[in-house]
Amino acid sequence: MNKSQHIGKQSITFTNPASIITTASIVGKTEGDGPLGCGFDHIFEDEYFGEDSWERAESKLQQLCAELVLDKAKLTENEINYILAGDLINQCIGANYAMRSFKTSFFGLYGACSTMSESLSLGAVLVSGGFADKVMCMTSSHYCTAEKQFRFPLDYGGVKAPTSQRTVTGAGSVILSAEGDGPYITHITTGRVVDKGINDANNMGAAMAPAAADTLITHFEDTGFSPDDYDVILTGDLGVVGSDILCDLLNQNGYDIYKNHKDAGKMIYDINNQGVNSGGSGCGCCASVFCSHFYKQLKEKKINRMLVMATGALMNTMIVQQGDTIPSIAHAVTICNSL
Amino acid sequence: MNKSQHIGKQSITFTNPASIITTASIVGKTEGDGPLGCGFDHIFEDEYFGEDSWERAESKLQQLCAELVLDKAKLTENEINYILAGDLINQCIGANYAMRSFKTSFFGLYGACSTMSESLSLGAVLVSGGFADKVMCMTSSHYCTAEKQFRFPLDYGGVKAPTSQRTVTGAGSVILSAEGDGPYITHITTGRVVDKGINDANNMGAAMAPAAADTLITHFEDTGFSPDDYDVILTGDLGVVGSDILCDLLNQNGYDIYKNHKDAGKMIYDINNQGVNSGGSGCGCCASVFCSHFYKQLKEKKINRMLVMATGALMNTMIVQQGDTIPSIAHAVTICNSL
Repeated sequence: MNKSQHIGKQSITFTNPASIITTASIVGKTEGDGPLGCGFDHIFEDEYFGEDSWERAESKLQQLCAELVLDKAKLTENEINYILAGDLINQCIGANYAMRSFKTSFFGLYGACSTMSESLSLGAVLVSGGFADKVMCMTSSHYCTAEKQFRFPLDYGGVKAPTSQRTVTGAGSVILSAEGDGPYITHITTGRVVDKGINDANNMGAAMAPAAADTLITHFEDTGFSPDDYDVILTGDLGVVGSDILCDLLNQNGYDIYKNHKDAGKMIYDINNQGVNSGGSGCGCCASVFCSHFYKQLKEKKINRMLVMATGALMNTMIVQQGDTIPSIAHAVTICNSL
Repeated sequence: MNKSQHIGKQSITFTNPASIITTASIVGKTEGDGPLGCGFDHIFEDEYFGEDSWERAESKLQQLCAELVLDKAKLTENEINYILAGDLINQCIGANYAMRSFKTSFFGLYGACSTMSESLSLGAVLVSGGFADKVMCMTSSHYCTAEKQFRFPLDYGGVKAPTSQRTVTGAGSVILSAEGDGPYITHITTGRVVDKGINDANNMGAAMAPAAADTLITHFEDTGFSPDDYDVILTGDLGVVGSDILCDLLNQNGYDIYKNHKDAGKMIYDINNQGVNSGGSGCGCCASVFCSHFYKQLKEKKINRMLVMATGALMNTMIVQQGDTIPSIAHAVTICNSL
């Protein structure tokens, strides 16, 4: 048997860390107009991406993002051993239909908005274990597919709660490689499902923050890292409300993350001026922000070690209408320039 | 870097194969009345499983199946490093809500009816790579959640097409371990998405058979196995129609699998007398049949090497209504008593 790389309760420390050799990001107009706009590879004015339905648009978005990351890496689909991807649409058709364009082994994932961390985690396992040379990890979300599926038809013009978040139209893709000069995925902490009884589907941040806290505290305990070991602790889409809850929950447990916590959902929009209430959400939020702004910061050595911890709310509309509460999950991935 | 265990285009040969130390299966009444009825661990007369909605029933089914496999293995949830599970309900709430009962790292998967093979594949990667000591792999489906979501409300009493299949009410769970006396997961071949233009949502077998053929032919090419190396080549839920297509497609490519191909969807019901048209379907079909009948045959050495290849149709209702075709995928897992 191999020497175990599993540490503590829920974590892995990789003996042979995978290198993130390329990333790509594509977003819609509203995201392009936000504070991180100049960092994305492509900004599409047409949120249909040339298709005739929102669902086809999101699938096209993933297809384009996968093609782009291959192009940037100067690789063909035949040089990629696995693609791991998912999205929020029922039966994950965003990823599944995009995959028709690639003759590559595919693992479909569903972790709601935690899917980017989940795909990075399992991608790192495949590469670090010697099971793959190169892997693509990808997720997307789309404001229009999410609104019609989870909330109201766009034409209805429903008023939003102050705690609500705007689903990001965007995708991010990453190529992991067994060889490369970093940044590397050195550790992962895989979350468990946490449900603290929140049943307000317009307040995902509050539902997800306890799962983020659970994973982050476990991560510190398992790995021996402290908040100061990280230049950035990035959550995916807790937004304003959820971010405050997370930082306070960590503080109550003896960890001060106020100064180095960032949330992609707070960063991707100008919260005060873009009418997005508590911020951005969706699988594509963490994916597009990590694959643009933060990957660039890592490559330019402006940061050395960061944690990417996307969080997901695991309900569907029907079970919430049946009166059930919202379980959530968060997966943490340590990304570091030095080994 | 580890020595690569990736072989051919889409396959892995495991240097340290995981052992399947226990399985559990739970089904509903119709499945219990079928030809394999005596092999399941539990048959529930009440398809609500004591809950008040079909969605909660399916979640309860997964919870019970996970508890049962732990009980049979004399393990606690703390001794399991990861659970990998999924189902067919929108946003996979069958698995996600069941996971509230377990304090275990969780990877949510979506591969439609291929999910059992997908979870076995990634579970084997985690164990064989030295990233986990013990892993649980699980899927479920439920006739009533699937009918209302994908087809018609049960009360409507819609007439079925002859090519249609009955979604199995059932779940199967497996515990993989780094130590054990087999059977072992020795190889996996991970499918790619195949779409041959079928757009009849009442003929899933025809949509999925080309994906099964693609993966199976690649499996033979990658591993060097021939059909004769297998006592059984088990597909998940191609049913009568899809099974015939698969065997013929293989024959056209020079592989004779007529005599050792079995399909869980054909086996779980008495096709002629239970009014199930082309047979069973759903993630729970392959899962419950493998975890009962076939695991027993392996343990009793009645068979030595089998292939478990569940197939999934990756559409949702909306994209089919928009006129799109049905992409499919199949993942193959070699299970063998001898190393």
